[in-house]
Amino acid sequence: MLEIRSVEAAAHIGEEVCLKGWLHNLRRLGGVSFLVLRDGWGTLQAVTENEADLEPLAGLSLGTVITLAGRLVAAPQIAAGVELHQPKIEVITAVTEPPPIPLHKAAIKASLPVLLDHAVVANRHPQRQAIFRLSAAAMAGFRATLHAKQFTEVQTPKIVASATESGANVFKLDYFGRTAYLAQSPQFYKQIMVGVFGGVYEVGPVFRAEPHDTVRHINEYVSLDVEFGFIENHFTVMAVVRDVLAGIFGELETRCQPELALLSADLPVVPPEIPHIHFADAQELILSLHGVDVRGEPDLAPQDERWLGEWAQQEHGSDFLFVTGYPMGKRPFYTHPDPANPAYSNSFDLLFRGTELITGGQRLHRYADYLAALDKAGLPIEPFETYLEAFRYGIPPHGGFAIGLERLLMQLLALPNLRLVTLFPRDLTRLTP
Amino acid sequence: MLEIRSVEAAAHIGEEVCLKGWLHNLRRLGGVSFLVLRDGWGTLQAVTENEADLEPLAGLSLGTVITLAGRLVAAPQIAAGVELHQPKIEVITAVTEPPPIPLHKAAIKASLPVLLDHAVVANRHPQRQAIFRLSAAAMAGFRATLHAKQFTEVQTPKIVASATESGANVFKLDYFGRTAYLAQSPQFYKQIMVGVFGGVYEVGPVFRAEPHDTVRHINEYVSLDVEFGFIENHFTVMAVVRDVLAGIFGELETRCQPELALLSADLPVVPPEIPHIHFADAQELILSLHGVDVRGEPDLAPQDERWLGEWAQQEHGSDFLFVTGYPMGKRPFYTHPDPANPAYSNSFDLLFRGTELITGGQRLHRYADYLAALDKAGLPIEPFETYLEAFRYGIPPHGGFAIGLERLLMQLLALPNLRLVTLFPRDLTRLTP
Repeated sequence: MLEIRSVEAAAHIGEEVCLKGWLHNLRRLGGVSFLVLRDGWGTLQAVTENEADLEPLAGLSLGTVITLAGRLVAAPQIAAGVELHQPKIEVITAVTEPPPIPLHKAAIKASLPVLLDHAVVANRHPQRQAIFRLSAAAMAGFRATLHAKQFTEVQTPKIVASATESGANVFKLDYFGRTAYLAQSPQFYKQIMVGVFGGVYEVGPVFRAEPHDTVRHINEYVSLDVEFGFIENHFTVMAVVRDVLAGIFGELETRCQPELALLSADLPVVPPEIPHIHFADAQELILSLHGVDVRGEPDLAPQDERWLGEWAQQEHGSDFLFVTGYPMGKRPFYTHPDPANPAYSNSFDLLFRGTELITGGQRLHRYADYLAALDKAGLPIEPFETYLEAFRYGIPPHGGFAIGLERLLMQLLALPNLRLVTLFPRDLTRLTP
Repeated sequence: MLEIRSVEAAAHIGEEVCLKGWLHNLRRLGGVSFLVLRDGWGTLQAVTENEADLEPLAGLSLGTVITLAGRLVAAPQIAAGVELHQPKIEVITAVTEPPPIPLHKAAIKASLPVLLDHAVVANRHPQRQAIFRLSAAAMAGFRATLHAKQFTEVQTPKIVASATESGANVFKLDYFGRTAYLAQSPQFYKQIMVGVFGGVYEVGPVFRAEPHDTVRHINEYVSLDVEFGFIENHFTVMAVVRDVLAGIFGELETRCQPELALLSADLPVVPPEIPHIHFADAQELILSLHGVDVRGEPDLAPQDERWLGEWAQQEHGSDFLFVTGYPMGKRPFYTHPDPANPAYSNSFDLLFRGTELITGGQRLHRYADYLAALDKAGLPIEPFETYLEAFRYGIPPHGGFAIGLERLLMQLLALPNLRLVTLFPRDLTRLTP
């Protein structure tokens, strides 16, 4: 008998098929029983008026793993448009306790801590399946775009010798009696790899020991990193950001219609050219539009970003806005200054619907400039010696950016907490599951 | 002017083009100068009899970053079949010191420690570029195969609460005042995710604090992990292993001909069905073929594996051999026993050219079986509580496997040390670059 996935049912109406999955729901209404099977992709309803069909499930709970066979029939009265009749059920793995989080309800009612405590089971809920399916598609779209641009994928080390990169807090590790650290980003390695491949990308975990307990911070997350050479300036990098976003959202659109519908997600349109505004002009704009004088502030506050997001939507009809030229003072030492105005940098943030999603820019590329920048920052040379070797022996003008995978999903789905889009989040107090 | 990559030159003979990259070599023979440019993909030779063309390079070293423009001309006398005439050179980043590892020699002569100390530069050598290009293609082939099989990509946490998985040594971490550990594999999480998606895969770093100083051990490596449900037994898993290998080597064949040629790599043929032999039969075979009695040993020694590899080649014409049914005693607690002979397991190793490359098998899937297995292994339940939750609420019969990316390349390229196929290796004494 043909074995299909739930999402393929509509294409097999009239056929005898079987599916394997979990008993998702079982309701008896009058003399009719409605059984729903959940597999890794979605759900399918089976209907029977014959109580004996359900005999194999006697005494078992939702979550029991089953094989469900029967005939697929058009069912225009339900959203799926198809249901299974004459079900034959075989139990694969018996489950006798109902799950700690009800999975058959359309919405998860559990509080966030309960949901996270039971993430092992809660992630089986169709809504959460859908979120992590979007994650997978986003990674695929990211990689496909960069592969098409002739960038090479790398995997750089996560255990590193030096804690000194951009000042973020790092986790300490006992490495055979020495102190080592977990990489807070692949920044140095991706720059080094520009010297090998010209353009590189990496999808991997990054680790931040920031003791912040906010809805926008977790201590381990997935970073989508890009770095490449032979650029003109940060605008060359921004053009690649634009294409990568188009690739990611394009992949979601192609691959994830059922998931997007389930989550009521509203995919953004990535314009051919994303509008941009200089940091100083953005501060002037805020003053003129909202009467709030943030000129002289070294960074944008969340409210500033929201105002700018509204402006991008009204002025340009765009969910995206680049803010360029952040002041050098707040950027890490490897940041390339604006040659025309060295107090500002050749860097950018990308705002997505009024919240910062991506940071990037042009980096220094001359060895002498690195020595000067470290000196100016009061940093010693020794911990950076192997990093500096890349520049000593030739690196072109280059830049790059990083996208936090979880932030991308949180903003796309307009969810209130980063933990909701993280499979098994790590935060100040949470190390399990 | 058309900007091309070195590897595209042969397709543009007769055209004016420009390339960007590194000054790879410069030789003067009689009145003729040969300049070689290296970019992220390969090299291209430029030829001139006009010394003035080289004027921009005066006083500069190999490694200088340049733009090279000129006309492409057929050159049947050299391997590339094409060279560039009337070169116009512009310096992008000047380099004044020759690199610590000569990159323009066909082979790297440096000792391994020197090569690794200077990996930042040494990885620019065309042979090393080629190795890591193969890495990237192998990851892509892995993912493409599993995506086509409807498996879902996941990224699971690398900071974990419990050190107890399979007994391997783990790195300890200070996690906001608590002790945490670096994941030695995504084993538990990928099994948990079978309950969400049915089938999953992950490409990510794993961390082993094994104090071994051997050519086959490093302490951080890239693991290609697969786990999926609704299997019959370990043979279902082995069929997926076969397809994944075919996908990986197929991707290398399609994408990496120049790299394979440069490295004189001999791609294996993945047979439609990889031959297999039971562990006990393998020991009998070794006795009958080589007169060495290893029966009763709980594992295969490297020499045993080499003999079996030779046998697979002679008997089946295969570079690959599955050894199935390893004794339960040496396998981790979650291993599924052979129902017909519970002293043996439903597990396998895959030998590639006489060396173990992949380990996998069927896992336990019933909650009660886990409780019994932990009890038998003398392990407490508490550190496994969230892991056990997956089984308590329904997991189908499942299994999986893991491929060490670096080992795959080491064995494919017949290299003597795992460090040679690792971008920036981490071992007992090495934390940089």
